[in-house]
Amino acid sequence: MPAVAIREISEFVGGQHSGDGKGSISGVASLTQATSDQLSFLSNRKYASDLAATKAGAVLVPKNLEGTDDRWIRVDDPYFALARIMTRWFSNRPLPRGISPKAVVAPSAKLGANVSLGHFAIVGDDVVIGNNVAIFQGVSIEAGSTIGNDCIIYPNAVIYDGTRIGNRCIIHSGVVIGSDGYGFATHDGKHHKIPQIGIVRIEDDVEIGAGTTIDRAALGETVIGEGTKIDNLVQIGHNVKVGKHCLLVSQVGIAGSTELGDYVAVAGQSGFSGHLKIGNRVQVAAKSAVLDDVPDDTKVMGSPAVPFTEFARRHAALKKLARRKT
Amino acid sequence: MPAVAIREISEFVGGQHSGDGKGSISGVASLTQATSDQLSFLSNRKYASDLAATKAGAVLVPKNLEGTDDRWIRVDDPYFALARIMTRWFSNRPLPRGISPKAVVAPSAKLGANVSLGHFAIVGDDVVIGNNVAIFQGVSIEAGSTIGNDCIIYPNAVIYDGTRIGNRCIIHSGVVIGSDGYGFATHDGKHHKIPQIGIVRIEDDVEIGAGTTIDRAALGETVIGEGTKIDNLVQIGHNVKVGKHCLLVSQVGIAGSTELGDYVAVAGQSGFSGHLKIGNRVQVAAKSAVLDDVPDDTKVMGSPAVPFTEFARRHAALKKLARRKT
Amino acid sequence: MPAVAIREISEFVGGQHSGDGKGSISGVASLTQATSDQLSFLSNRKYASDLAATKAGAVLVPKNLEGTDDRWIRVDDPYFALARIMTRWFSNRPLPRGISPKAVVAPSAKLGANVSLGHFAIVGDDVVIGNNVAIFQGVSIEAGSTIGNDCIIYPNAVIYDGTRIGNRCIIHSGVVIGSDGYGFATHDGKHHKIPQIGIVRIEDDVEIGAGTTIDRAALGETVIGEGTKIDNLVQIGHNVKVGKHCLLVSQVGIAGSTELGDYVAVAGQSGFSGHLKIGNRVQVAAKSAVLDDVPDDTKVMGSPAVPFTEFARRHAALKKLARRKT
Repeated sequence: MPAVAIREISEFVGGQHSGDGKGSISGVASLTQATSDQLSFLSNRKYASDLAATKAGAVLVPKNLEGTDDRWIRVDDPYFALARIMTRWFSNRPLPRGISPKAVVAPSAKLGANVSLGHFAIVGDDVVIGNNVAIFQGVSIEAGSTIGNDCIIYPNAVIYDGTRIGNRCIIHSGVVIGSDGYGFATHDGKHHKIPQIGIVRIEDDVEIGAGTTIDRAALGETVIGEGTKIDNLVQIGHNVKVGKHCLLVSQVGIAGSTELGDYVAVAGQSGFSGHLKIGNRVQVAAKSAVLDDVPDDTKVMGSPAVPFTEFARRHAALKKLARRKT
Repeated sequence: MPAVAIREISEFVGGQHSGDGKGSISGVASLTQATSDQLSFLSNRKYASDLAATKAGAVLVPKNLEGTDDRWIRVDDPYFALARIMTRWFSNRPLPRGISPKAVVAPSAKLGANVSLGHFAIVGDDVVIGNNVAIFQGVSIEAGSTIGNDCIIYPNAVIYDGTRIGNRCIIHSGVVIGSDGYGFATHDGKHHKIPQIGIVRIEDDVEIGAGTTIDRAALGETVIGEGTKIDNLVQIGHNVKVGKHCLLVSQVGIAGSTELGDYVAVAGQSGFSGHLKIGNRVQVAAKSAVLDDVPDDTKVMGSPAVPFTEFARRHAALKKLARRKT
Repeated sequence: MPAVAIREISEFVGGQHSGDGKGSISGVASLTQATSDQLSFLSNRKYASDLAATKAGAVLVPKNLEGTDDRWIRVDDPYFALARIMTRWFSNRPLPRGISPKAVVAPSAKLGANVSLGHFAIVGDDVVIGNNVAIFQGVSIEAGSTIGNDCIIYPNAVIYDGTRIGNRCIIHSGVVIGSDGYGFATHDGKHHKIPQIGIVRIEDDVEIGAGTTIDRAALGETVIGEGTKIDNLVQIGHNVKVGKHCLLVSQVGIAGSTELGDYVAVAGQSGFSGHLKIGNRVQVAAKSAVLDDVPDDTKVMGSPAVPFTEFARRHAALKKLARRKT
């Protein structure tokens, strides 16, 4: 990692720094683990007690924090400042370099400028890839898919035919996009496959965690909206529409044709049944089962999921009941 | 996609068509999105209101639907008719062509007629593959496994040694079949691995969704019965027996040695503990935890799972209790 | 499989064998399926009724089992004896042989003695691999990672850069280690990625099941302690610390920064929210949601999880309430 002057870091994030700014920083660590050449941060006040003892050379703190320390850089939002600083200087993931001679690119595929392709990666017929895209080893991008600019696709991810991926997307290892949705017509005791001929469309600035699967639409599109961030081992069924800037935490499942609005946040291991309408800014607590439509700005919890207040009421009532001598 | 005469489509599914049948169809879409050269369908009456406004050139409808429209093709089961028509004409997934020179086939392996093997696919020692099998890039089929006729195996799926797969199976990307079951003998504070020397046997007409894992038996076989359809990210433990024509929806987990009868339907995110006997035609609601044997023809729900009626009773009682002033 | 004298087997596990020990064993099977050249075992008394009818040539039984049979080998712990015998003689998984010329090894990587590398495996810059390591086809080991001695890594597993893996670890197909943790700073309606620059450290004797994902730390380390066994499709978030000799059953999820003590056992589909402290020897029942710290030696259950006795009390109270006429 490079050594960066504290003054430069402070200026980059519009911070107020009371020190002389002459020191330099060559990495980032937590308050308890940072050394004098590292930057640290306080974004959660519950760790404020670690602030006095930290050995960090500089610390991002909230603008209005009480006290003084020559190492503090006061900013509006320390966590966001950290994201910007780390992205700018301290995130040195090694990427594939150039086009490996061991990759296979179909003659009809079109690669933009500065595309890197790892060993044994495959780019299928008529695939179109934008500029500054890094595709790691063993990735399959099947026929007719398109990838925007500035994307990273990690080893062994698989993108089925016809998938459309926007700009600045990050796709982790083990992700499968565009696999067949789960659709069968049962007739005379057998389940007959409905061919899944739709696609998956992923908008800009989406990140998809390791092992997540996103099924292609039966007909039409499965859509992941702009800025949505999906954690590991999440399942998105066919024809699901996920809105913009949603957060889907690990092991969430969304059954076919359900639609989520924008800024929906779903905690880990929750599930949605199919064909639901989930409003904007809905929040779903961990391990909930959402079986009905949910209006805008509602927080739900439980299995089946109900509004937070109703869940709390039931929980309290049951707790009380269990304590009663009967 | 090809253009197919409406008359030919109607005859293929034994439909009644009141129009002149002279038009042709070159694709399939939902009622709201279809254009005049596309086929659509009404299988769920809740979408009947979309029927009047559809621009589809032909529509599969139930035999006894009220009303008339020259574009309607009346059939017994529109959804099944759709499956047949799409499979026949409108499911053009690109498959690997021929045996890639970049695939590796062990000299002792036997490939049937019309097998295609994608780049970097691996066929191990003594593997036997039937006719008309398409194996995509990056797939590993390890030593001694057998694959029947007319199977499709998507990129980067892994089939461990000794697996037996029937005819007409579809295996999606990221699937792992034959990995070690979770078996340890704890002794003096350490967990000692029980080598898993059984196999996985998958019968005919099974489809396995992306990212699903099926463990080999400790001894003997893990079995997936004929016609069973498994969704994404499902976990099947060692020595599990899944019966014929079961439906296992996404993120279901079945612990070791549990046996499911035929036509068992398990909704998403449900789990079974080990060593259970689950009867025929059992239905399990979403996110249930089945901890005991379940007799034939029973619907269960909840965590721990109980019959639907009992679940409903408890749910209603709790709801009522929570509303009471106490 | 080899034929091994019963006497040799009995001596190897310190067993008492009343027969002449002259027969030989060439495999292992369950009591009901074993033939006269196979070894079987009784570790769970509930299968004792199968003992009389078994055709096994030798049977591992508990030291104090009533009755006599010339085929019995009496041992302290039949299941542990079975593990040792199978590991010694009857676990013939075919491994890759030598370094495939189709693998790619960075010039700066260091391989120990007796390393095998399957086709299309990739060993990145500065990777260090110990002795007797078998790496199957399609595995990616990215830059700067280290692997100890006697490890096995199955096809298409992915190990991101900087990961540290101990000795005698087993990593199954589809596993992803070191993918980015789920960390975003939300600012002006957008989720900004916090670069994840920590690593994953896996201690000795860890096994990781198929499709499991373990995220790298944001800063510092995600740690899996010595002797811990992880089943399939488990999710471990960034900066999680799992103690020594834990058991994490299939589809468990652990959110960021949560710490588990030693000998924690978590049944299938359970989840932990983030930043928790879970004590030593804690047991979590299946499908539980652990939302609070749990002290040592506590058994918890439910969603949200509470101690077993409290769960049982609530469950009984609700059951009773549902039966009451109101």
